[in-house]
Amino acid sequence: MSRYLLEIAYDGTSFCGWQKQKTGTSIQQLIEEALEKILQHKAPISGSGRTDSGVHALAQMAHFDTEKELNCSKMLLALNGQLPTEIRIMRMQKVNRAFHARFSALKKIYHYRIIHGAQRDPFQRLYATSIPQKLDVAAMRQAAQFLIGRHDFSSFANSPGHLLPDEKRDLTRTLYRLILIEESEHAVRLEFEGDGFLYKMVRNITGALLCVGRHKLSPSALQAILSAKDRTKAPLAAPATGLSLISVFYPENLLFSLE
Amino acid sequence: MSRYLLEIAYDGTSFCGWQKQKTGTSIQQLIEEALEKILQHKAPISGSGRTDSGVHALAQMAHFDTEKELNCSKMLLALNGQLPTEIRIMRMQKVNRAFHARFSALKKIYHYRIIHGAQRDPFQRLYATSIPQKLDVAAMRQAAQFLIGRHDFSSFANSPGHLLPDEKRDLTRTLYRLILIEESEHAVRLEFEGDGFLYKMVRNITGALLCVGRHKLSPSALQAILSAKDRTKAPLAAPATGLSLISVFYPENLLFSLE
Repeated sequence: MSRYLLEIAYDGTSFCGWQKQKTGTSIQQLIEEALEKILQHKAPISGSGRTDSGVHALAQMAHFDTEKELNCSKMLLALNGQLPTEIRIMRMQKVNRAFHARFSALKKIYHYRIIHGAQRDPFQRLYATSIPQKLDVAAMRQAAQFLIGRHDFSSFANSPGHLLPDEKRDLTRTLYRLILIEESEHAVRLEFEGDGFLYKMVRNITGALLCVGRHKLSPSALQAILSAKDRTKAPLAAPATGLSLISVFYPENLLFSLE
Repeated sequence: MSRYLLEIAYDGTSFCGWQKQKTGTSIQQLIEEALEKILQHKAPISGSGRTDSGVHALAQMAHFDTEKELNCSKMLLALNGQLPTEIRIMRMQKVNRAFHARFSALKKIYHYRIIHGAQRDPFQRLYATSIPQKLDVAAMRQAAQFLIGRHDFSSFANSPGHLLPDEKRDLTRTLYRLILIEESEHAVRLEFEGDGFLYKMVRNITGALLCVGRHKLSPSALQAILSAKDRTKAPLAAPATGLSLISVFYPENLLFSLE
């Protein structure tokens, strides 16, 4: 048995998200269908985590197992030949059997892009959330400071019913970095780097920061919300549009197969 | 009677093009419907020219007439409130009654973007045409030189049946500028600047240049095709995806209303 890693870029606009659902077409499902067609056997893939409908990925990671010995560059062409242009396999490699796309992940980076105080841009409509008001980016930066570090992020995690079983056990995560980059006068990019993210955590934090940016909440209110460890104390999640999974980091030794 | 100019940005992906058609939703139609709803009377708009389905515009220009005296900034907000996010009115101003979005145009700029010799990029799928081979950009540049200047562009204009009546009369146009900008190792942008463009002229020229870039035609073959003044001598048009109308230029004196 060999384990293979796929690095996948996708525009999530037209899909119901990464994970297979009862309704709608998921990215996972399309890749599994393409794999089955080529390998002639079912090969379930495990992703580094879910992304919601409308969320994009520059480099989602997923693994699958097969008894076959695969030529990765040929396999990559064959897979992309089966997939719609919204989904591209960017890289494929054999990995250590102990590698797991979700459980081996050390760190993830997400970006959230916002256009504010300007006309909506038709070419950014799928890649940024648009806010009519000009945001107070300085206040948002101040608020972000309260969230950096190791915390119980219950206030920013969606209701336990939507959480995976193991996420119920421990809602403590480390947010290594949360910075706001002003791409232009009217565009700001929030960069999140952490050891793991709870369900809807990035969108929930962004929703709270948007309230700060619009002076609906003071920067220090975020400290109180975080301490409350209660989802109902925090504002609504920001829309899915604007969010992208940028990268997932793994231990070097698991990325190489010894065979 | 007052005449107003609209500057319009749109992502043409989901529409049947600028012009009203028997089937499909056009950009012109959606703007006319929004105008009628707000003005409470029909106000047909005249655009600077048609764009096909899938072709984008950063600044398409169109005018309409009304007896009403309009507040342009309020009107702009109201129009954008009615329009889908793919279409945005970026600017609105009162113009001289002698202004005509199509007949007053002095010059237009179109861009055509191509990704070549690389994996298709899911985020560029609506904004660039993707060619698996690496293109010979130097050969394309050489070929482009034969097209610059004042010529009868019959070989690059689509069949007379699809032309407007006045385009049948004279197929001579001046191409002031045709340059190739390498945005990155795998992305090239063709910039066209001319006094006017025949139906599908940009896509037909791009189609021929793509043949040169893939060594299916020599650069000088374009001179022979141009001289033939025969559409059947030129290669197929490049796809609509990748083409954008960037700007339309008018005489300064027509852009201001004297009232």
